Amino acid sequence: MYERIIELIEEKKFSLLKEELNEMISVDIAELIDELDKKNSIIVFRLLSKDHAAEVFSYLSSAQQKDIVGAIHETKLKEILEELYFDDMIDFLEEMPANVVKKILMVSTEEERKLINQFLNYPETSAGSLMTIEYVDLKKEMSVKEALAHIKKTGLDKETIYTCYVLNEKRKLEGIVSLRKLVLMDDELLISDIMNEDVITTQTLDDQEEIASLFKKYDLITLPVVDKENRLVGIITIDDIVDVIEQENTEDFQKMAAMEPTDEEYLASGIFSLARKRIMWLLILMVSATFTGAIISKFEDVLSTVVVLATFIPMLMDTAGNAGSQSSTLVIRGMALGEIELEDYLMVFWKELRVSGLVGLGLGLINFVRMLVLTAAGMKIAFTVSFTLFVTIVLAKVVGGTLPIAAKKFKLDPAIMAGPLITTIVDALALIVYFNVASLILGLV
Amino acid sequence: MYERIIELIEEKKFSLLKEELNEMISVDIAELIDELDKKNSIIVFRLLSKDHAAEVFSYLSSAQQKDIVGAIHETKLKEILEELYFDDMIDFLEEMPANVVKKILMVSTEEERKLINQFLNYPETSAGSLMTIEYVDLKKEMSVKEALAHIKKTGLDKETIYTCYVLNEKRKLEGIVSLRKLVLMDDELLISDIMNEDVITTQTLDDQEEIASLFKKYDLITLPVVDKENRLVGIITIDDIVDVIEQENTEDFQKMAAMEPTDEEYLASGIFSLARKRIMWLLILMVSATFTGAIISKFEDVLSTVVVLATFIPMLMDTAGNAGSQSSTLVIRGMALGEIELEDYLMVFWKELRVSGLVGLGLGLINFVRMLVLTAAGMKIAFTVSFTLFVTIVLAKVVGGTLPIAAKKFKLDPAIMAGPLITTIVDALALIVYFNVASLILGLV
Repeated sequence: MYERIIELIEEKKFSLLKEELNEMISVDIAELIDELDKKNSIIVFRLLSKDHAAEVFSYLSSAQQKDIVGAIHETKLKEILEELYFDDMIDFLEEMPANVVKKILMVSTEEERKLINQFLNYPETSAGSLMTIEYVDLKKEMSVKEALAHIKKTGLDKETIYTCYVLNEKRKLEGIVSLRKLVLMDDELLISDIMNEDVITTQTLDDQEEIASLFKKYDLITLPVVDKENRLVGIITIDDIVDVIEQENTEDFQKMAAMEPTDEEYLASGIFSLARKRIMWLLILMVSATFTGAIISKFEDVLSTVVVLATFIPMLMDTAGNAGSQSSTLVIRGMALGEIELEDYLMVFWKELRVSGLVGLGLGLINFVRMLVLTAAGMKIAFTVSFTLFVTIVLAKVVGGTLPIAAKKFKLDPAIMAGPLITTIVDALALIVYFNVASLILGLV
Repeated sequence: MYERIIELIEEKKFSLLKEELNEMISVDIAELIDELDKKNSIIVFRLLSKDHAAEVFSYLSSAQQKDIVGAIHETKLKEILEELYFDDMIDFLEEMPANVVKKILMVSTEEERKLINQFLNYPETSAGSLMTIEYVDLKKEMSVKEALAHIKKTGLDKETIYTCYVLNEKRKLEGIVSLRKLVLMDDELLISDIMNEDVITTQTLDDQEEIASLFKKYDLITLPVVDKENRLVGIITIDDIVDVIEQENTEDFQKMAAMEPTDEEYLASGIFSLARKRIMWLLILMVSATFTGAIISKFEDVLSTVVVLATFIPMLMDTAGNAGSQSSTLVIRGMALGEIELEDYLMVFWKELRVSGLVGLGLGLINFVRMLVLTAAGMKIAFTVSFTLFVTIVLAKVVGGTLPIAAKKFKLDPAIMAGPLITTIVDALALIVYFNVASLILGLV
């Protein structure tokens, strides 16, 4: 596709190009523009029809949106803005520098300007920032027939017409009706007869993570956002929630790998920004790891007497770290999905104790046999290492399983507090056990 | 709520309980049943109305579904099965033991039985296993008015009526029409005039991960599933895809924490099953970590001369592991989200090289000053450790960033191959660098 477009541009066959573009799906055009250089991408964008242009625009990256705003005429910009859904417009403005925002506010009406400013003030991860204002509102006195006529008249510009909102004269939300019901029910029925009054709602400042949970729990397609007086201020649609879910997952992956979370794409991020997100946690963990070093210091005599003990340090530390992060990952993920609650503390403890007993016993035995058969370490050292392995795995799994719950209990983020720290903590535990067991068994006290 | 229900059961106020239950949302009833013991949950389930019962049933865990199938009468079971959407029925049957499946096939008609057997044969992560057969089909010769009448007549049992499928007499998919269009357009228009012929489709054996990507990319609500002759066999709806996305994320978390992936809930899993999922990778990593130990062995002379070197091993290993998994996590996640492709290999390499240079320089310098000021290590050892830190971070990040792409290139799962192995690999690298630098600088060669 890419080659074909370049060819058409180079041969200046613009009307043919225009025709072919208008047959494509907006997302695919946006992907294509992503691969073109700035000059060509603006040529392609200018050839799009009015409807198409707004949709394609909403799928572009912020950098490309900025390029295009800089290159197109004010009238064309105004056209696109009018076609954009309000939530896409806010997403776009949130990422633009002040001068671009100013340019856009200048081509907006007084009323739009007020609304844009209000929406830009909602925190970026709140319901307010996710919602759109293009919804269908009905009155409960309408009949099904009147409602369908109302939708036919006003529905074209709405982001969704599949859920309609029943408002009173003060715009308070009284119920919802699905288009499904309207189409399937008798024309003569009243909205008040068929509307659902048990509406699940969210408030403007609620966090996107809670909102995503509501969508997942109740299999929602849309969710109304109300203010404190239960007045409808906007609606959130499932397509934005799918993005939120992926974004929250990405953040958890990043936190658990000891990074400050970001929603920038990797390839689009600058190296200083990437370095900054990584260095802080590495520094904290580096300093904490020196405490682990201090443990070795304390047992330097033991170590210098039996230097061979040092060769098993990496294996013990790595296994401890891996065992601990297995447990912490399962528990952090279980909490994120709502499968594990604070009250399950003891159940997790008991489960990890038994699982780690099994795993520790298995690995300890295998290691014992392996060391006896394959190394010259001798019985005492083989036993020291294997017994340490067993104790360490039990400790690592119990700490790894319960620390995330403790973090949550103290209102700390489990992914950020428990993920990266687990390895450091269990490494220290592993070494303390190791040297104490060694001193005892090898009679070095 | 829980206390209230228990109270009503104990006081045997069943008709009041029935009334209150029928005012609740199905998901919430399912959650409530989750908390009740077996006896009470069956009491509650029996009180549900027919429609409610099927919906609640589809939200229950497999264990509870099994209990209920065992306890209710055949007639009631048949009623529920008739109300269940086909995809929920298949999900349920996939988890049931053979005798339950048999019981259910016995109460089904010949035709249903054939269909059920066909669907149970699709792999669990394929389109076939996700799809449902309750969709609206239209003919292209219908007018909008006729289509709406057809929907009104047949739509009640359909899982969704928001996208309708235009089929020819051989059931080949010719296009789709959204209910939105049907409601907004003129009654007299023909379906063939307004239908969208550029339909995005999937095939029965396509994998759920690819299907989820299509939903994300094109902001879909439903996706038609066709066979090789382009005949429509079913549709997939967004609510199931939201579950798929979370499931795929959970699997990636598990793989990156060195576990075999599973979709069992943590608290519902037995300890032997949990232990089995964890022990294999721990064993593999334990054995590989012994190679790291072998490196220490090789430098035992260096170590016994300058025992203090051992105290910095944990810090170097931990920092290397953390730096490596930061990079591998970002790249694995970027590939999962489709932001990083195989062709980006060199870009990732070059980016990690520069980022790691910055991070390594920062941490190296801080560590050098810290060791000089706070420890008695002396200039040479401080330099050895800090320089090793720098080199290790660069190596760890370059390996961490590129290994996942290499894994994918060789058709291996990046999350499983690169995640757990990174730490082991970079630990070994760290120690090799450390002892070589130490030998050189301290003149121990």
